[in-house]
Amino acid sequence: MTMGMTAQEYKKRIDEALAGCFQGAAELPLAGLAEAMRYSLLAGGKRIRPMLVLEFCRISGGDVQAALPVACAIEMLHTYSLIHDDLPCMDNDDLRRGRPTNHVVYGECTAVLAGDALQAEAFGAILRSPLPAERRAKCAEALADAVGIDGMCGGQYLDMLWEGKPLSEEELTEINGRKTGALLTAACRMGVAAAGGGEALDEAAARYGAALGMAFQIRDDVLDVLSTDEELGKPVGSDAQEGKSTYMAMFGLEKCQDMIARLTEHAKQVLKEHFEDTAFLCALADSLAVRSN
Amino acid sequence: MTMGMTAQEYKKRIDEALAGCFQGAAELPLAGLAEAMRYSLLAGGKRIRPMLVLEFCRISGGDVQAALPVACAIEMLHTYSLIHDDLPCMDNDDLRRGRPTNHVVYGECTAVLAGDALQAEAFGAILRSPLPAERRAKCAEALADAVGIDGMCGGQYLDMLWEGKPLSEEELTEINGRKTGALLTAACRMGVAAAGGGEALDEAAARYGAALGMAFQIRDDVLDVLSTDEELGKPVGSDAQEGKSTYMAMFGLEKCQDMIARLTEHAKQVLKEHFEDTAFLCALADSLAVRSN
Repeated sequence: MTMGMTAQEYKKRIDEALAGCFQGAAELPLAGLAEAMRYSLLAGGKRIRPMLVLEFCRISGGDVQAALPVACAIEMLHTYSLIHDDLPCMDNDDLRRGRPTNHVVYGECTAVLAGDALQAEAFGAILRSPLPAERRAKCAEALADAVGIDGMCGGQYLDMLWEGKPLSEEELTEINGRKTGALLTAACRMGVAAAGGGEALDEAAARYGAALGMAFQIRDDVLDVLSTDEELGKPVGSDAQEGKSTYMAMFGLEKCQDMIARLTEHAKQVLKEHFEDTAFLCALADSLAVRSN
Repeated sequence: MTMGMTAQEYKKRIDEALAGCFQGAAELPLAGLAEAMRYSLLAGGKRIRPMLVLEFCRISGGDVQAALPVACAIEMLHTYSLIHDDLPCMDNDDLRRGRPTNHVVYGECTAVLAGDALQAEAFGAILRSPLPAERRAKCAEALADAVGIDGMCGGQYLDMLWEGKPLSEEELTEINGRKTGALLTAACRMGVAAAGGGEALDEAAARYGAALGMAFQIRDDVLDVLSTDEELGKPVGSDAQEGKSTYMAMFGLEKCQDMIARLTEHAKQVLKEHFEDTAFLCALADSLAVRSN
């Protein structure tokens, strides 16, 4: 197993790799589309998903450098989902990570295309990576499973369909599992797949990802109540204002914090049973549980 | 090599396979999204792209049955592109193949998601197919290459960017090569890849597809002038009305028909040099050259 990195080192490496994306296409006449894609891709996210890819690859005995395109792929996919979520016909958001959203800057038509192209390029990045064909196919399949009708797109659809309706805990978990959990889970699984890890590791990665995803969403709901606009990079209190069903509205702060703690503990436990050198991923789970944005 | 089929037999097989797609997901609460996806997927296209996949697979010595999910995938991809092209913020079309477009029936938000999900499911269908991993990876890579920023999305972007501007022949060919040619080319290449065909066959398939794609687009421009609304399933004359640069406006009918004939001849010639049993694909090229819708 290669030496681990700190979150900062991982982030630097991921940001550098992402900064190189679509520069070839940045020649006229396609420069405008490349610019729109890069505007959102390089908007400075926390890079949690690509970090999960790289670290799961490493602790599964894989080559982190060879998995870098896979890490970039999941960030492209995540970015496309944010661009389309923000569209006027979807959530109609003007602000994302403290900056104007894609369609505000580039117009709706380009924003749709930038999202569409980022989804295609996400699969392309995996499939063009230097990994053996079997691992590339497995990574791409895990991604496709996570983002199709049974995954992210399905979650978005339910979110729209059930807008304004008071949700049961089950329904809320169904939306969030698809919208947030599926992609985090895919990131973990893709890391294992990039290393050629077997079924037991794949399953453990999926369980860690699912627990992390649920804790992540609950923390999101908590922050929408407790954070400030500046810290969050978008207006707080929007959930309550829109009458949205959230874990906070359903259970209150204390229960939410208890749920986050239990899920985080469970995620760490699953890891330790199947992997060695789990320090980074345990620390990541802990830090996400108390994150402020 | 297995026995060939007629276009009708292929179409029947493809339509049956497509009819089975997203039925599992057609349970509540995701039924609405599955319905929107199926509405456009089953709107009765000519199924040229999936036919190309299956026949190129067959004449490359592959198993047509195993390639059926790959054939469905390219039709899903094509369908997603039509749904998004028709959106109000894109071409804003109300009619497609004689029926109301997706967003007219299901609303803009669902139409965006149906397109997004169809793209993901296209990759998913390839990657979940029973083909060996190497062939699945190659098919999916050919698809990704065709539909990202250098392919279809790039073509859509240029089409929007250059709207209303008088185009040079080079620019027109650049748009059409990306918008129409790339996906037709990918269909041919994916058929070869599904059969495990080598580089020479891949290249020949790409050249056939590119010539076919260009002839296809010129014929489209001709039909927009010479056809009737009923035959075309959409209003004719829209290109001229919008002042769009087309091959017809640029070269007139006689030159266009000459170009179509030359491209069709070239496509057939390339095939015959590299494949045996090219009767079906030669007939297909001939029939597309004189198609009426």
